[in-house]
Amino acid sequence: VPLGNVYYYFKTKEEIGEAIIEERLLQAKALQQRLDEISSPEGRLCGFVKVTVDSRQLLARGGCPIGTLCTELHKEDDALAKHSTVLFSELLKWFETQFRALGAKADAHGLAVHLLSALQGIAVLAHTLRDPKIVIGEAERLQGWIQTLGTHDNRGDEA
Amino acid sequence: VPLGNVYYYFKTKEEIGEAIIEERLLQAKALQQRLDEISSPEGRLCGFVKVTVDSRQLLARGGCPIGTLCTELHKEDDALAKHSTVLFSELLKWFETQFRALGAKADAHGLAVHLLSALQGIAVLAHTLRDPKIVIGEAERLQGWIQTLGTHDNRGDEA
Repeated sequence: VPLGNVYYYFKTKEEIGEAIIEERLLQAKALQQRLDEISSPEGRLCGFVKVTVDSRQLLARGGCPIGTLCTELHKEDDALAKHSTVLFSELLKWFETQFRALGAKADAHGLAVHLLSALQGIAVLAHTLRDPKIVIGEAERLQGWIQTLGTHDNRGDEA
Repeated sequence: VPLGNVYYYFKTKEEIGEAIIEERLLQAKALQQRLDEISSPEGRLCGFVKVTVDSRQLLARGGCPIGTLCTELHKEDDALAKHSTVLFSELLKWFETQFRALGAKADAHGLAVHLLSALQGIAVLAHTLRDPKIVIGEAERLQGWIQTLGTHDNRGDEA
């Protein structure tokens, strides 16, 4: 797309940024709705991890589209940066809902932070090492951990 | 520092990039040498996690200095990007050494990837959410997990 066309639709850098955030938010919501059809919370969480694995070539080429957008926008401390935060907070909320359904009460937020961190981090590693395969092993570890939370008397501890 | 001064010492963008990578590498090596004086491998790994906790204000302001540098340089697929990879691969090697000393044989690399991912990811979250406190809970979880690896018959499993 020639830059002129972009500026025909969006008058400022802020408008472009807002449009990208809204687009990513819609994509995330669509994914969550699709995963919400899976009957068990551990299935929904493992399904999310699987989407990360399926995107490993993309992650190795350019990093996580949400993570790199947020990191980029947070070089400034402005309204756009603040708005991009919604991408992570919505994801954390959805993860938390699943962990609570798994039986984790007080710790659901901490578990959600752990899962989102791990996924963001493996995207940074895959990108920097240009290694899509590195996502596979970490995803298996995370899926194993999620299954453990689902089977071990629903207490939601990692250890 | 006025930009003119920087270009007095460094003739090209590549030279500046190389100098930053070398500086970060020296800092990482100095930290590892300091931590190597701790007698137990779980103490060394928990010590590394503690350094992340102690840096939480910095992480919330600007992200991980190594992670954001690598992400930035990997927007290009050039020699500088390739060189920056050494920052992660050296860290992974050091983590692996500790996990092997903890008794994890075949899985030492996977455990190292898991720990580095978690730390990179929590830095991305702290930065995007502008929340230094989020690092504390995740660090406690990781330190608890490392201690478990050290005490539960040295098998190096997460679950």
